[in-house]
Formats: sequence, structure tokens, C-alpha cells
Amino acid sequence: MGNFKGHALPGSFFLISGLWWAGKYSLWYATRRNKSAGAGRLTTRATQRRVEIFEGAVMVSFSVIGMLAEQFVPDGPKLRLYDYTEQHWDRLMNWQHATMYLFFCLAGITILIVHSTDSAPFGLDRFLLGIAFFNEGFLFLYHLHGRDMLDVHVHQLLLYATFGGALTCMLEVFHRGNILLELLRGTLSLLQGSWFWQIGFVLYPPSGQLWDLKNHNNMMFITMCYCWHLAFALLTVAVVYSTVICVVRSRLRRMPPMEMGLLKPREREGESEDEIL
Amino acid sequence: MGNFKGHALPGSFFLISGLWWAGKYSLWYATRRNKSAGAGRLTTRATQRRVEIFEGAVMVSFSVIGMLAEQFVPDGPKLRLYDYTEQHWDRLMNWQHATMYLFFCLAGITILIVHSTDSAPFGLDRFLLGIAFFNEGFLFLYHLHGRDMLDVHVHQLLLYATFGGALTCMLEVFHRGNILLELLRGTLSLLQGSWFWQIGFVLYPPSGQLWDLKNHNNMMFITMCYCWHLAFALLTVAVVYSTVICVVRSRLRRMPPMEMGLLKPREREGESEDEIL
Amino acid sequence: MGNFKGHALPGSFFLISGLWWAGKYSLWYATRRNKSAGAGRLTTRATQRRVEIFEGAVMVSFSVIGMLAEQFVPDGPKLRLYDYTEQHWDRLMNWQHATMYLFFCLAGITILIVHSTDSAPFGLDRFLLGIAFFNEGFLFLYHLHGRDMLDVHVHQLLLYATFGGALTCMLEVFHRGNILLELLRGTLSLLQGSWFWQIGFVLYPPSGQLWDLKNHNNMMFITMCYCWHLAFALLTVAVVYSTVICVVRSRLRRMPPMEMGLLKPREREGESEDEIL
Amino acid sequence: MGNFKGHALPGSFFLISGLWWAGKYSLWYATRRNKSAGAGRLTTRATQRRVEIFEGAVMVSFSVIGMLAEQFVPDGPKLRLYDYTEQHWDRLMNWQHATMYLFFCLAGITILIVHSTDSAPFGLDRFLLGIAFFNEGFLFLYHLHGRDMLDVHVHQLLLYATFGGALTCMLEVFHRGNILLELLRGTLSLLQGSWFWQIGFVLYPPSGQLWDLKNHNNMMFITMCYCWHLAFALLTVAVVYSTVICVVRSRLRRMPPMEMGLLKPREREGESEDEIL
Repeated sequence: MGNFKGHALPGSFFLISGLWWAGKYSLWYATRRNKSAGAGRLTTRATQRRVEIFEGAVMVSFSVIGMLAEQFVPDGPKLRLYDYTEQHWDRLMNWQHATMYLFFCLAGITILIVHSTDSAPFGLDRFLLGIAFFNEGFLFLYHLHGRDMLDVHVHQLLLYATFGGALTCMLEVFHRGNILLELLRGTLSLLQGSWFWQIGFVLYPPSGQLWDLKNHNNMMFITMCYCWHLAFALLTVAVVYSTVICVVRSRLRRMPPMEMGLLKPREREGESEDEIL
Repeated sequence: MGNFKGHALPGSFFLISGLWWAGKYSLWYATRRNKSAGAGRLTTRATQRRVEIFEGAVMVSFSVIGMLAEQFVPDGPKLRLYDYTEQHWDRLMNWQHATMYLFFCLAGITILIVHSTDSAPFGLDRFLLGIAFFNEGFLFLYHLHGRDMLDVHVHQLLLYATFGGALTCMLEVFHRGNILLELLRGTLSLLQGSWFWQIGFVLYPPSGQLWDLKNHNNMMFITMCYCWHLAFALLTVAVVYSTVICVVRSRLRRMPPMEMGLLKPREREGESEDEIL
Repeated sequence: MGNFKGHALPGSFFLISGLWWAGKYSLWYATRRNKSAGAGRLTTRATQRRVEIFEGAVMVSFSVIGMLAEQFVPDGPKLRLYDYTEQHWDRLMNWQHATMYLFFCLAGITILIVHSTDSAPFGLDRFLLGIAFFNEGFLFLYHLHGRDMLDVHVHQLLLYATFGGALTCMLEVFHRGNILLELLRGTLSLLQGSWFWQIGFVLYPPSGQLWDLKNHNNMMFITMCYCWHLAFALLTVAVVYSTVICVVRSRLRRMPPMEMGLLKPREREGESEDEIL
Repeated sequence: MGNFKGHALPGSFFLISGLWWAGKYSLWYATRRNKSAGAGRLTTRATQRRVEIFEGAVMVSFSVIGMLAEQFVPDGPKLRLYDYTEQHWDRLMNWQHATMYLFFCLAGITILIVHSTDSAPFGLDRFLLGIAFFNEGFLFLYHLHGRDMLDVHVHQLLLYATFGGALTCMLEVFHRGNILLELLRGTLSLLQGSWFWQIGFVLYPPSGQLWDLKNHNNMMFITMCYCWHLAFALLTVAVVYSTVICVVRSRLRRMPPMEMGLLKPREREGESEDEIL
């Protein structure tokens, strides 16, 4: 996938999932905080489960599509790992990308199992997601041997976002329901997504004017550019968060207050998922 | 032990202990969760203690056998550390491997003491196990000077599993009884075990056809192969876990419900070990 | 800003903020501890909020001034990023410094929002401050390519203080109100400030007598000098802390005791901010 | 202090403090656990305080003696930092060692203040001790430029013990009174002490027969030797711990049981120190 589209595609996935996470967790946080005002009615536990299962299903289907695409594109390996006639490994790049998708697929399956049955321990979904991010970073880490300085550098910067995402997920296993960690995950996912696009623009510029991959000034600019992407991701999450908070509040104001006796059992349901662990 | 058997042997040990841990902790987790259904009868605290003591005894005996084997195999150092006639250290490799076994032996002795007496602080067993894993990784780390690129790489990949295992054990000291950490330990042990086999196949292929240890493509394949081993270890643990959960549930369904009065004291016993700390 | 003033200026900012933090948190800690003696009257929750908002406003204004100064000094880039006539990036140093200020500006805005509204989750202020410190260290890290040994070394030593500050802020997210972490943040800020001055004196000595940037003895002296700065920062914080504690105590002794009935509601207010999280 | 005595002296200090810590914390742990059997009488809170103050006083006096010795030995710098006649720094080694002692002196003063007054926050003593260990490791880290391979290696191995000690102290700030961390600190201190002796024997062998500092086999032996020192330190701490536990138990058996009414207030005192934090 050494082309512009090959970086824009995963970039878009990560951008969407970052936005999705920022919105989802903001909504749930607003619900939890305004429970006394009747916000429990907005997202019950049953709704939350359905949303999680939907998220898991989407993640599984996209990863399966990704794996199949990597294998069966015209110049893909078509499940052949070793070329016996020429005695070398066949299209390792595609295999590596398929392996990355494989772990996100496992993470998606785990989300499905955790939220549709009661058998799996809580926190397993975050754990597997953390492993998927770690695995992505791990493969990129040993991916860069012998490339140009700037090429190596832009991929190394990506590692901050992937390993940061993995660390965030692992912390979430122990501090489940912490809104800051959840938004941080959204932020790092957005950062990763927009950086994939940036890598595409740097290494395969659509304008056709190539960057000098050995220029020290380009390195310094790219580093700073990464910080701007981070600032942009932080701002996006902040905008999503405050929009959600405002919408929830204005809705609650318009809703007629319920009687306390009716409200209580539903509230409990709404919060129990985060407190079972 | 620079041969195929020398890597397959410890590999098998780690594979077995990974499976053992996955099974043991799944069973105890299922017991804890289904306590209200009478699962306390399946594993009482006394049984758990006996199982732990058995585990410690097996660990001690295997490590002692390992140490003796390293010393007294035909080309072993036979407890001689320095060769005074030729003025050099004698068979340092065997001594290093014996040192690794020594720390697992210490960990086994600690398990015996912690679970057969009440004198040692809880968590000491995990702590010593963590030190044993750390020590193994530490010796491998300074072991690789001047070897071929691929040889170094396969051993470095092993370090992720050993240091990961050490970190997991250390976290278990503070979060005892966390099922995710316990299963992670099992997973990393399986990973280490299957990777030892893989190292054996790469460096001393039984087929006789040697790998090119300086080929960059081989490096990239091996990195990806490590991820597959991780996926395989995760799947194995998942299979073990779900089998155990299913068996426990079907057994509970067939058991006649006990009276609550009789049940309670036993339940308490069953859970107390994890909560003393 | 490659001159003496360019290092003395941020150094002074960090020195002042270090002193400010040491004083502020010492006062609040003294208030919390002597609550039963009526210290709740010294700093109520409303006062604390006003102080925080003041801090945020100062941080925002200084960062905006910093950004403008970096852009519009006589030899600044004046918002031009790329020099199309000479085909290279324009004054990247100034842009990098402006980026650092940008993140401190974001941290300041977050402090304002967290403490003037109730919408943002608690801990977000520390979190953004941690990101600002991390970002500063991150830019310095990739800033040093191809400089002299001693130049690289003095900037690397600075990284201990910046990354240490980032780590402290992140820990504060989970352990909010821990006086040790708060004082550590003050200490590291003082260390960073005095070290900026030291860098100025080493690289651009006002006396005009240049240092030998390749001498190994200078390296060793500078390393030790950094430890002295740390000792100095620790002592300064200790002096500030004990002064505040003494002043609070002597004041409390002179105050007439209040009736318990009147005191209680105010006390509660005083402590609630740290316990909401 | 580039001689045998210069390594044996600090080594002995660390050995003694390791033994002291192992004994002290074992005794307190045994007291806490056997409180119901009347062990509260063995070490009351007042005794604990006196012991801590004694420890602080010893630490301060030894560090001051160390600093004076480094400065005023016949070939010491005698407080002169810069040799203006020959334009170079004067005996930086002695200054660096004095700086290390300075931080242990600060840690000792902190222990005195924390345990003799009520003004300082609890945990500050561990915190400063952690900084003292970190500072020691930090100075060693930038100390090794341009030495022989084995010389660098033995000092690098020392860093595992010093940074490990620093990390342990920092963890103790958050998990105060955890017996495992306290014994680990003792173990790492013993390890550091015995390793200082080992360094002395390797670099300045009293037998006069010099080691080959560039031999790879020596490196491998030294690495393994470090593991043996760790095993020795673990065993020593285990022996001290079990001796203390046995002595406490046999004493309790001989003591006549006290009435519960009398016992309770003293018990509370005994445990309060660890729980104030």
C-alpha cells in the first residue's frame, strides 16, 4: 500500500473512530453527571449495550474487509506467503497490514462477546483494543529499516499516537469509566488519523512535487506539524464534547421531570455497567 | 544448549505452565463469580492451597532438574567455574542457564512457603516470580553481543514476552486476583513457550536447510510471525477460558442447590485468600 | 531566540510559576490540615476558584504575548511559514517556540473553563498542563540535531525537568490534591527556570568568555551543576512551604475561635473541590 | 576515590542500611500482624518515631562526614571548584561524590523533620530518599564516558540497583507501609552494597592481578555475577525477616495476655502513623 490511498484509507478509519469515541463517551458522561435531572432516560444500560455491540460489529466488518482487500487486490499475495520459485517471502507488506487488521478484528470480536454475553470479564474489551494498538505500533517499529530520514521520522512520530493509545487502553482497564482517559483515546485516534493523511501528503504528494526526504529543515517542520495535529485533535474533541454537553442540557430542560420513585431503578441500570468490574 | 533440543525443552515448560495458569485462574474466576449458585463447593480455599503447593513443588523440582542437567550433561561445566589451566571462564552459557533456573527455583520455594505457612506476606509469590522473569530477560539482554542480525532479533523479540511477564507479575502484587492480569500472564507464558520452539526452528532447522541470518526480508517475516504467535496464544487462552466457564456452568446446573445457612461459611473461606493482602 | 535574553525570559516565567505553585499549594494544604482550628476561613472554595481563574488568565495572557513576540519581533517570521522565493521554511525556531506557547495557552484556557464553569471534567486542567509540558519536551527532543556536545547536553538535562513535570501532572490527574505531587511540580518548574538561566550563561555568556563546548570536563561539571540546581529548587520550595505553614499557624492562634455550628458549612465548601473528581 | 577503599566504604554503608531496613520493617510488620496477640507492646508509635529520628540522625552525620572527607582528604579539592592558574575544573570526581552525599544528607534531614515535628506531609521522607537514589544514579549515568568496556558495564549494572531503589521509594509514597516494597528497598540496598565491593575487587583487585577490561567473557561472567549478588541479597533479607518473625512470636508466647480494655488505645497509636497519609 505504498501510495497516497493506502495512507488515506486507514487515516479516515481512525478519524471516524476518534470522532465516534469522543461523541459516545461525552454523551455517557453527560448522562451520568445529570442523572438527578433525569438524564438516565437518554441512555439506559440496554441502549449502551446495543451501541457497544454495534461498535464491535462495525470494527469486525471493517477489519475483515481490510484483510481481504490486502490479500486480494490485484497485486496482493492472495494468501500465498512464500514464493517457492524465486525463494523469497511474497509481498510481506500486505501480510503485515493484514496482521494489523487481524488484531483489530480480534478486538472487535471481544467487544461483541463482552457486551452480548456475561461470560467474559469486564475490561477485556479495552485490554484487547490496547493489544491491537500495541501490535500496530510494534509492526511499524520494525518496519522502517533502511528508509530515508524523513520517511523514518514521520512513521516514528506515528508511534507516539499508537503506543499512547495502547497505554491509554491499558490504564482504562484499571480506571474504567474515567472520562479523561476515554477522551484521550479519542484524541489520539484523531491524531493518528490525521497524521496518516499527513504521511500520505508528504511521501506521495498528489501535487506531484516531491519533498526532500533528507533535509533537516523538513524534519524540524514535520515535528512541529505533529504538534499542530495534536492541537487540532484536542480542539476537535473539545468541540464535540461541549456540543454534546449543551445538547443534553437543553434536552433535559425541555423534558418534564419524572417522579423519583419511577426514576430510581432505571438510573441504577444506567450506571451499573461501569461499576461491575 | 545451542541446539534445537535446548530451545524446545524450556519452550515446552513455558507452554505447559501457560496452559496450567490459564486453566487454574479461569476455574477460580468462574468459582468466584458463581458463588451464589453454589460454586464455592467446587474449589474451597483448602483445595486452592493444595493446588498452589503442588504448583510450587513442581516448579522447584523442574528447576533443580534443570540446574543439575545444565551442570552435569556430558559437556557441562560440572560446577567448575574457572579453567585455571587455560585461564578462562568455563562454559559460561551453561552457568547462565543454571542461574535462570536458580531464580525460578527461588520463586517455587517462595510459593511453597507463602501457601504452606502464614509467615510470609501475601503477594511475595508473584513478586519472586516477577523477579525470576526479569532475571531471565536480563541475562538474555546481555547475551547477544556479536551474533548475527536475525539471531539477535529473535532473542530480542523474546524479551517482550519475558519483561512483559515480569511487569504483569509486579502489577499482580498490587492488583491481586485481577483475572485479566492472570490470563495475561498465561498468554505471555504461552507466547514465550511457542517462541522458544520457533527460535529452535529458525536457528537449528531440523530439516537442515539453514535460514539466511542477514536477510532483511527474513527479519520482517519473523517480526510478523511473532504477532501471529501472540494471536495464537490469545486464542488458546480464550479457548481454555470458555471451556472452563462452560464446564463449571453445566456442573452447577446439575448440582442440587444447597441451603444458604450451610453455604455461607464455605463461601467466605473460598474468597478470603485474595482479600487478606 | 538564540541569545541570552531568549533563555532568561522563559526561565523567569518558570521561576515565578514555580514559586507561585509552591506558595499556593502550601497555603491550601495548611488550610486543609488546620480546618478544625478554623483555617477554613482563610481560603474558602470561592477564593480558591478566583485564584485558579486568575492563574489561568495570567497563563493565557503571557502565552499570547509570547506567541506574538515570537512572530512579530524585528527578525520574526510575521506569520509567514514558507519562503516561496528561496524555497525553504522560514524561521522555524520562532515557529517552534510559538508552538510551545500555544500549548501553554491551551492549558491556561482549560484552567479558565474548568474553574469558571461546571461543564468540564475535573482533572482536565492538570491533564492539559501535562500535555503542554510534554509538548515542550517533545519539541526540544527533536531540536538538537547536529549541535555541539555541550549544547546538546544542557538541553537534554532540561528534558528531565520538562518530562518530569509532564509525568507529575499526569499523576495528579489520578491523585488530585496530593501535596507531594503539587510541590514536586513547583520544584521541577523552579529547576527548569533556573536551568534556562544557566543555559543562557553557558551558551551566551554575558562576560563574553566562551565555554569550550567539546570539553569532557565541562560536561561533567554541568551534570553536577544540574544536581545543585535541583538541590536549590528543593530548598526554595522547603523555605516557601515552612514560611506559609508558620504564617498560617500564627494567624490561627490570633483568631478568635468560631462556633462550630457556623463553621461547618463553610468548611465543607472549602474541601469539596478536591473531592468531587 | 578511584581505589579499592573508595568502593568498599560506600558499599559497607549500603550493606549496613540494607540490613537495618530489612530488620526494622520486618519487626514492624510482625508487630502489626500480631497486634491481637499483644505485639503492640513491643513497638509503640513513640518507639517507632525515636527509631526513625535515630535513623535520620545517623544518615545526616554519615553524609556530612562523607562530604567533609571528599573535600579535605590530602588530594581533595578543599572547596576549590575551579583552578584559575591552570584553567580547568578541580577534582570533579570528589565534587561529584560530595554531591551524592549532599542529597543523602537532605534525605536524612527530611526524615528528622517529618518524624520530630508534625509540619511536613507524610511520605516526604520516602520521596527525598527516592530523589537521593535517583541523583546517585543520575551522576553515575553521565560519569562513564570514555572508560573501558568492563568498567562501564559494572557501573551500568549498579544503575539497576540505584534506579530500582529510587522507583521503590517513589512507589512507597503512594503505597506506604507495603512490606514488600520496604523489603525490596532493603534488598536493593544490599545488592548495591555488595556490588560496590565487587566493583572494587574487579577494578582494583587487592591481589594485584588485573582483569582484562576488554574481554567479552569477563562481561558475560560479570552479568551473571550480578544475578548471584541479587540472589544473595534476597536470601539475606529472607533470613533476617524469618529470624525477626520467629523472635517476635516466641516473645509473644512468653508474654502474659493483657486485658482488651488496656490494649486498645495503645494499638491504635501503634498503627496510626501509616494510616495518616
